[in-house]
Amino acid sequence: MTGTTLDDYTDRYARRVRGMTASEIRALFAVASRPEVVSLAGGAPYIAALPLDAVGEMLGKLGSEHGVTTLQYGIGQGTLELRERICEVMALSGIDASCGASPDDVVVTVGGQQALDLVSRLFLDPGDVVLAEGPTYVGALGVFQAAQAQVVHVPMDDEGLVPEALEVAIADLARAGRRVKFLYTIPTYQNPTGVTLSEERRERVLDICERARLLVVEDDPYGQLGFEGEAPAPLRARRREGVFYLSTFSKTFAPGLRVGWILAPHAVRDKLVIASEAQILCPSGYAQAAVATYLSTMPWREQLKVYREVYRERRDAMLAALEDLMPEGTTWTNPAGGLFVWTNLPDGLDAKAMMPRAIAARVAYVPGTGFYADGSGTGNMRLNFSFPPPERIREGVRRLAGVMEQDIAMRKVFGTVTPAGRRRQGGADAPGPDLA
Amino acid sequence: MTGTTLDDYTDRYARRVRGMTASEIRALFAVASRPEVVSLAGGAPYIAALPLDAVGEMLGKLGSEHGVTTLQYGIGQGTLELRERICEVMALSGIDASCGASPDDVVVTVGGQQALDLVSRLFLDPGDVVLAEGPTYVGALGVFQAAQAQVVHVPMDDEGLVPEALEVAIADLARAGRRVKFLYTIPTYQNPTGVTLSEERRERVLDICERARLLVVEDDPYGQLGFEGEAPAPLRARRREGVFYLSTFSKTFAPGLRVGWILAPHAVRDKLVIASEAQILCPSGYAQAAVATYLSTMPWREQLKVYREVYRERRDAMLAALEDLMPEGTTWTNPAGGLFVWTNLPDGLDAKAMMPRAIAARVAYVPGTGFYADGSGTGNMRLNFSFPPPERIREGVRRLAGVMEQDIAMRKVFGTVTPAGRRRQGGADAPGPDLA
Repeated sequence: MTGTTLDDYTDRYARRVRGMTASEIRALFAVASRPEVVSLAGGAPYIAALPLDAVGEMLGKLGSEHGVTTLQYGIGQGTLELRERICEVMALSGIDASCGASPDDVVVTVGGQQALDLVSRLFLDPGDVVLAEGPTYVGALGVFQAAQAQVVHVPMDDEGLVPEALEVAIADLARAGRRVKFLYTIPTYQNPTGVTLSEERRERVLDICERARLLVVEDDPYGQLGFEGEAPAPLRARRREGVFYLSTFSKTFAPGLRVGWILAPHAVRDKLVIASEAQILCPSGYAQAAVATYLSTMPWREQLKVYREVYRERRDAMLAALEDLMPEGTTWTNPAGGLFVWTNLPDGLDAKAMMPRAIAARVAYVPGTGFYADGSGTGNMRLNFSFPPPERIREGVRRLAGVMEQDIAMRKVFGTVTPAGRRRQGGADAPGPDLA
Repeated sequence: MTGTTLDDYTDRYARRVRGMTASEIRALFAVASRPEVVSLAGGAPYIAALPLDAVGEMLGKLGSEHGVTTLQYGIGQGTLELRERICEVMALSGIDASCGASPDDVVVTVGGQQALDLVSRLFLDPGDVVLAEGPTYVGALGVFQAAQAQVVHVPMDDEGLVPEALEVAIADLARAGRRVKFLYTIPTYQNPTGVTLSEERRERVLDICERARLLVVEDDPYGQLGFEGEAPAPLRARRREGVFYLSTFSKTFAPGLRVGWILAPHAVRDKLVIASEAQILCPSGYAQAAVATYLSTMPWREQLKVYREVYRERRDAMLAALEDLMPEGTTWTNPAGGLFVWTNLPDGLDAKAMMPRAIAARVAYVPGTGFYADGSGTGNMRLNFSFPPPERIREGVRRLAGVMEQDIAMRKVFGTVTPAGRRRQGGADAPGPDLA
């Protein structure tokens, strides 16, 4: 067996999972994790805000006093205890028994990523179409492309997904004879834009999908991290049928435990469990006990407030720094929650081409192209504000602004700094020409 | 969106993952977990043999002192620290630097199941053939069928996979124009038979696969749980190329942490990482730290000896009970390690049909049909000896023998107790007519 044969077998797969972009992002994070670099690239929660002594004590007891259970195999769906706690968490957002939410229909997953992967495995066949916001979560694009599905982006504006554009996309795809399997959406404090789908649009989007008999996959990792009052209720709180609700404890507790979940329509819950068993046999009993015990014995609602306060302060620091330091022509979103700001560079700048210069200036971000399946996003970057403290955020934006000023100056001298044929078209209205 | 439409979408998938069998096995485990039932059905390690106080203390510190790292996101491949420890574990079995094993080529997975799933995702297309021992691990059958691959079983005898039968199978499939992607094998203390591939056959199997340019996926969860000296060296210790080595800490430490690994050929390691990232983003940093710290600070080699001693005693109890209590005509394997004994029922008995009567008599096992993709195994059952203590094992076998005696008596009166058309053909030579 030679390397050539292995390549032969697997190149097809590598293409499927967009090897290039994934590798690039990994290389980026490797560089960004150097201490001298201000990383605005990640999506990590600020774990130091947790009461780690108390968490450690709890984790220790789960081993010493309950190890015979927590360290053993469990069932594929996840423990009933955790699924009951998850229902309490969802009830905070209005997803409760009144709209049919039940522990029986919760499937515990290895973070939100496995939740997405399971839904994709269940529904997607090669050649299928998935509708998704443009831009959207890079990890979702990886999953959909691994399933050999095509992502068709639906434009956004400051109020989120544009319902008229969704209707047009559905009609166009129907005319083209394409099979659309679901709408994937992050309606609240979206990744990467931070934008929230407005109250009124939530109903319209649901009506449109209902009429088109289109499933909705609602990804909601950030919904409880709002800085300005409550977010509009999740889509799942508004409809019993046709909505898969996905979430995770990665942003509200700790990503290192890898615990997420799906609230599934009852008709397919069992199939999701079977699919998950084929994939991982069962979720970690220890991690599930950790989350369930955290939720039943520790002040998790207070901790949510702590996270919100920390992130609100950092969001403010980010927006102030952008306002004070960014070159003219740069615009950005104004997130009411979550972890990210989405920026539009001045006309002619290419966020990916600029990366090496940014790294040299000791600042990192994720170029916008990572969040599109169609090559859009060259003039955008995603900036994270949840992990770096306020003064580091300001320093990072200062470095970034310096790199941008240089690129703008170069462009004035040489006409362009973007590779041929990759220049952005059109203006720079928030949250971006591709979102207008 | 109606339930009908969901079913419509997903029935195809449910068929793929052998929904029936998986559901049956889950139902079985639900019943088997009742305290009054002696379960010989599971595959669980005896966690109570771990020093849980010390493990708990270690787990606590990983939260309180290192939570900022362990509870955070990590990289898709897994931490270097754990991958280095994994190489030390593999070196115990002879897989070391001299045969090219390196932390760089280790990919950490969510138990052995995700390892199998990743390799399958990378290599299997619908219609492909996987060669596997008959019988084989039920979870592997689930993965291969989810990938829409066909499993062709290769017969075994007391020395494991029969090389001549492997050659015949490869030749037959080549003549039929089928695309065979790999041989999946558990060469040491196999699940479900407990049989070990002999030293001499290991080389022959590798030679056959090399000539046929066939990859080998070596699954080795039990290799370090031998009761009678060292097992023959793993296949990967004998060949640098063409062998994927899969293992897990589920049997040697704790399944509740869900930590396994793949040692992959260098050419595809990166593709496995990308596939894993699409599936779970990254393995649990906390679980990885737990295993790495266990391996670097606790006497894990001594603990292996403890597990071996516990399981050897229970294996002996199982074999003695079978010898003393089983009806004439029953035969079984004689495992030198691992967790399982495979039995052949007296001619005419059907292990699956007998299950309700066994459960009524408060004893559970897994019927042999679960371990075949082709409906074989009606006259077999898998018995686990790792979890129940010796006196419970004897009691379980006593109950089981009683049920079998009844079935045999019924058969003498009514001619048969198996459903029409499902009676076993042929004799009952160990480890089973389908394995001869």
